Amino acid sequence: MRVAVFGASGYTGLELLRILLRHPGFEIAAVTSEQRAGQPVGDAFPALRGRLELAFEASAPERIAGRVDFAFTALPHAASAATVAVLRTAGVPVADLSADYRLRELGVYREWYGDHGAPELVGKAVYGLPELHREELRSAELVACPGCYPTGALLPLVPFLRAGLVERQGIAVDSKSGVSGAGRKLEAALLFGEIDANARAYNVAAHRHGPEIEQEATLAAGGEVRVTFVPQLIPTTRGIATSIYCRAPGGLSTADAHAVLTEAWGDEPFVRVLPPGEMPSLQAVRGSNFCDVAAVGDERNGTLVLLSALDNLVKGASGQAVQCANLMTGQPEETALLEPAALP
Amino acid sequence: MRVAVFGASGYTGLELLRILLRHPGFEIAAVTSEQRAGQPVGDAFPALRGRLELAFEASAPERIAGRVDFAFTALPHAASAATVAVLRTAGVPVADLSADYRLRELGVYREWYGDHGAPELVGKAVYGLPELHREELRSAELVACPGCYPTGALLPLVPFLRAGLVERQGIAVDSKSGVSGAGRKLEAALLFGEIDANARAYNVAAHRHGPEIEQEATLAAGGEVRVTFVPQLIPTTRGIATSIYCRAPGGLSTADAHAVLTEAWGDEPFVRVLPPGEMPSLQAVRGSNFCDVAAVGDERNGTLVLLSALDNLVKGASGQAVQCANLMTGQPEETALLEPAALP
Amino acid sequence: MRVAVFGASGYTGLELLRILLRHPGFEIAAVTSEQRAGQPVGDAFPALRGRLELAFEASAPERIAGRVDFAFTALPHAASAATVAVLRTAGVPVADLSADYRLRELGVYREWYGDHGAPELVGKAVYGLPELHREELRSAELVACPGCYPTGALLPLVPFLRAGLVERQGIAVDSKSGVSGAGRKLEAALLFGEIDANARAYNVAAHRHGPEIEQEATLAAGGEVRVTFVPQLIPTTRGIATSIYCRAPGGLSTADAHAVLTEAWGDEPFVRVLPPGEMPSLQAVRGSNFCDVAAVGDERNGTLVLLSALDNLVKGASGQAVQCANLMTGQPEETALLEPAALP
Amino acid sequence: MRVAVFGASGYTGLELLRILLRHPGFEIAAVTSEQRAGQPVGDAFPALRGRLELAFEASAPERIAGRVDFAFTALPHAASAATVAVLRTAGVPVADLSADYRLRELGVYREWYGDHGAPELVGKAVYGLPELHREELRSAELVACPGCYPTGALLPLVPFLRAGLVERQGIAVDSKSGVSGAGRKLEAALLFGEIDANARAYNVAAHRHGPEIEQEATLAAGGEVRVTFVPQLIPTTRGIATSIYCRAPGGLSTADAHAVLTEAWGDEPFVRVLPPGEMPSLQAVRGSNFCDVAAVGDERNGTLVLLSALDNLVKGASGQAVQCANLMTGQPEETALLEPAALP
Repeated sequence: MRVAVFGASGYTGLELLRILLRHPGFEIAAVTSEQRAGQPVGDAFPALRGRLELAFEASAPERIAGRVDFAFTALPHAASAATVAVLRTAGVPVADLSADYRLRELGVYREWYGDHGAPELVGKAVYGLPELHREELRSAELVACPGCYPTGALLPLVPFLRAGLVERQGIAVDSKSGVSGAGRKLEAALLFGEIDANARAYNVAAHRHGPEIEQEATLAAGGEVRVTFVPQLIPTTRGIATSIYCRAPGGLSTADAHAVLTEAWGDEPFVRVLPPGEMPSLQAVRGSNFCDVAAVGDERNGTLVLLSALDNLVKGASGQAVQCANLMTGQPEETALLEPAALP
Repeated sequence: MRVAVFGASGYTGLELLRILLRHPGFEIAAVTSEQRAGQPVGDAFPALRGRLELAFEASAPERIAGRVDFAFTALPHAASAATVAVLRTAGVPVADLSADYRLRELGVYREWYGDHGAPELVGKAVYGLPELHREELRSAELVACPGCYPTGALLPLVPFLRAGLVERQGIAVDSKSGVSGAGRKLEAALLFGEIDANARAYNVAAHRHGPEIEQEATLAAGGEVRVTFVPQLIPTTRGIATSIYCRAPGGLSTADAHAVLTEAWGDEPFVRVLPPGEMPSLQAVRGSNFCDVAAVGDERNGTLVLLSALDNLVKGASGQAVQCANLMTGQPEETALLEPAALP
Repeated sequence: MRVAVFGASGYTGLELLRILLRHPGFEIAAVTSEQRAGQPVGDAFPALRGRLELAFEASAPERIAGRVDFAFTALPHAASAATVAVLRTAGVPVADLSADYRLRELGVYREWYGDHGAPELVGKAVYGLPELHREELRSAELVACPGCYPTGALLPLVPFLRAGLVERQGIAVDSKSGVSGAGRKLEAALLFGEIDANARAYNVAAHRHGPEIEQEATLAAGGEVRVTFVPQLIPTTRGIATSIYCRAPGGLSTADAHAVLTEAWGDEPFVRVLPPGEMPSLQAVRGSNFCDVAAVGDERNGTLVLLSALDNLVKGASGQAVQCANLMTGQPEETALLEPAALP
Repeated sequence: MRVAVFGASGYTGLELLRILLRHPGFEIAAVTSEQRAGQPVGDAFPALRGRLELAFEASAPERIAGRVDFAFTALPHAASAATVAVLRTAGVPVADLSADYRLRELGVYREWYGDHGAPELVGKAVYGLPELHREELRSAELVACPGCYPTGALLPLVPFLRAGLVERQGIAVDSKSGVSGAGRKLEAALLFGEIDANARAYNVAAHRHGPEIEQEATLAAGGEVRVTFVPQLIPTTRGIATSIYCRAPGGLSTADAHAVLTEAWGDEPFVRVLPPGEMPSLQAVRGSNFCDVAAVGDERNGTLVLLSALDNLVKGASGQAVQCANLMTGQPEETALLEPAALP
């Protein structure tokens, strides 16, 4: 199956290439980059020298649609919406890594992202978290791959919301993220000298992934969920470590909470429920498509602590997109995604 | 005034030396280290070559007591208790950086640390957080310097507890710490290869600093406070960034919360209340004795987010000890402590 | 083909597992670790949870020899020698990642490493640098995989020595290495607090890899080569960036030097000769089996600068061992080794 | 004495502020920044909040000249030249941290930097390396502070050139630098994601500091010196670790080389000659004005290895500028500069 990667020179685009290069069912047929159009991939990114004999081309979805069977769009939001619309009109199935089709209500999208490039498609995409929407994904033609933070928040949290074991309000999600989550943006705040040996919260209770977490959590809970989402930058390149604080009114022990997670995700190929007492770490998931989850019940304080770790560029973006694409195209879901984290 | 530093070759001991070298009122007269007894300080630590012409000596508090007017003890807990007792018997005022005199009840100490080396002194020390106990410190002869995590938790939290603006239960304290907080311990988990590019929670709701936070928070609140304390290791050497999640039943806006912090700490020399919208960062405090604090009210979710940043070896340990010592000896509180963070 | 990994819980052992898990021709049948004998691999290393359903066992080469068709030995030097001898006696082909069989003369080995555990085998191994010894490797039964530093030094240097274009004396090799090269040793000098934000040379002109570089360089040059080898630790986990300074008496331009490298390595699958003006970087090779090389001629100073970058755990150890094993077992040399570096 | 810092919001400007804040003889009277004119220093840089109650102003050297007794110019090259000329015309003594007055020949300047903003002053400045030009500095009114790389290269090298113990050609200088040396430039190559876990050489034998090193080395040697200068970026913020490879035809032992360094620098306050066998490290100098140096003689290969470590923003820039200013204004040379490196 021939695939195109739109926006292939960004961090998630490059990660898609890395995964697709080992995928037996997909052949990379087109890679786009406005900035680098015309440049061979290996000249622009020496890491790929000798591995991918293609040149970047300018994005032209009408033209490229005719050459491929599937498309990944890893473009900035807004830019993505329109490209996706052209591809869908041409009948190409799309896994979109941007934020453009994640929010189901146009009004919420506009509040957080501004104008939408193809409002008629809003609400038509399947939310690409296979652990929540696997069956829908098998027949989906347009998938909105989740944000990196929502993936790390929803996987540990949803089982407890579904079971009604925690209060739906007053939830706090504290996520520590490597800087690659911001992409290769030319901002002074992302220079090495500003991130190294530093750590700080940003957009506290005001980050775009907050409403995305609430949307999916509310769907899962069957009632409105309120989350205070606090993202933090830590001095590393990849990975998100999330801690979630919920109120468990009846009390919930670590053992009980572990049982809930195991019941929910025990058979999932990419969610690993850690044994009680073991905590998720970025090192164990870096470069891999795994999301490790754990729970600790602090009964004396009526609080349940949920923890997760994932690689924001893999399970938080490109790996998850390939997982969705595997489902959409009828291939084994794990294809090309079982590579474990490198140690150390 | 001649001072001794017991345990001068550990991370907090070395930081004491760095601060005392610029202190006009204290002269370093004795430095102890069991491992390095007999070795000139500059041979052991090239950074101090040419700056401190002393050799480490074995700890002998009886003997050293006669040569000094003041002592800092930066020994491991348990070891510290007994040394402090000898120094106090000899009439030497002591700022103790260990955990041995922080907990006011022997039973709680034993539960978390084991046997105590001088139980008769437990409860006799002043808790060395000048922002809470300044007046007592002026006449104290034994000061228990707070743990690094409690300092970062109490400074933003106490004003709201005192004012009764947040619930006293269900508080979550999420602290991201550099590894120097663990000291120079020979543990595989602290090797560069295990910390670099990694992040993970540890001792979730089961860390020794939890009861210390609760003890002082309870005192400040005038009623029992319950905290779920979750420490996390991030890949940096110095600094603790803390986020605290509390329930503010009546709602509390960011502006109101900022006013509470300003009212409490506006005149403090080492607590900087950041303007609304600005977040504490490790970079702004690293190497300095400042603790930056901020607050964000998430009224729609009934949640107050408090944030702080400090250098665990300075305001979280050695800087704070010198701040206490300045008070104990009648010197200006800021002496030798105004050095700002280096940028970048 | 069933394979054993001896010393599978060290850094090079774990990297072997990571590569072998994606190898279609090798099945991991036994993994040994003295420290972790009996423990399931996934319990000890959460990154491998769900990927490798084996437990570590104690090293027992006699017994394990009967269960496998090939062995990798990733044991400390000296320990490796004896294990290898047992495996060879049992007829098992071995790729040895230790230093025990790299040096061709027992006297030199003893000078740098001490007693040898199987002196009768010294000089019997093929040096496992496929770019220099490919044909011998195809029929080898015992391969001594090169050290990480020698790999990075020899690949750029040998073509110029063979062509007689540089002086054989007065060569300086300056190698900057990540700390994983030292393994997971419990040394204070390898703690995060000592490596982070630090850099320093060590064992200047006195490192064990110096005689190894000289041995192979001398063989290639057909006359005695003298190298001043200066290893340096830099604050990263993986990778070695090497700069070599040689005297090119007749002058050698960058273009000419590039031609020499291209002539030598243009067809190699894992040595990438960078275009003139482009410099090797750790990022482009990290996690991969590639070694990138480049040359700059400084004709006005009669100096040729050679540069290389590789991942010390892959092309500098475990990847190279698998490359050798592929040759030894008649499989395509690139099998399981084409994974590119992750970006960023 | 009232001082101005031109270009105070860059990395070297900020480091000047940090040092001047603890300087008893200088009062910061004006700080300029085009980008941040009008903004209070503490708002722009929270680390300085509460420490410096000044606002940045636009650079207006004519006007500011009347308000100060001394000026530091930390502006980009070319911009600096003209500002310095105005200040000098107004009679203000200047320590210039830019490259504009370092090169003694206008032609060489133009080759490497382009047009010069005040060519009439070229050759009139004293080169601000106190260890080489102390007496001239005492009466200088215009000082060109050395580049960070030249400082680290010249201090270990000059004693051997002066003594005629090494060949003047074929010298290689391999310098590993933290990224703050590049300033706070908005370049993709300086983003955290590109520097973290990376290392690479750049401008090999083609960096602007090469001719600066050769100029001063030639002056010291009394004959033309040729250097192949190879700068390298390593993943840290501050510090330069330099290794120099020279030919010592008669042979030079480590002990002899150590004696040469001790003879040259034994009485210097900021150059520390390490004992034989001890290697300079960034950690021992970070944040301090010390430059640590060492030498290893590799007699069997006719090679002398010289090593140094310094903080590029302190001894490599702002600390050295204050050291010069102390000399120029008749104050003790060490004033405000004895702060040791923080450990860890």
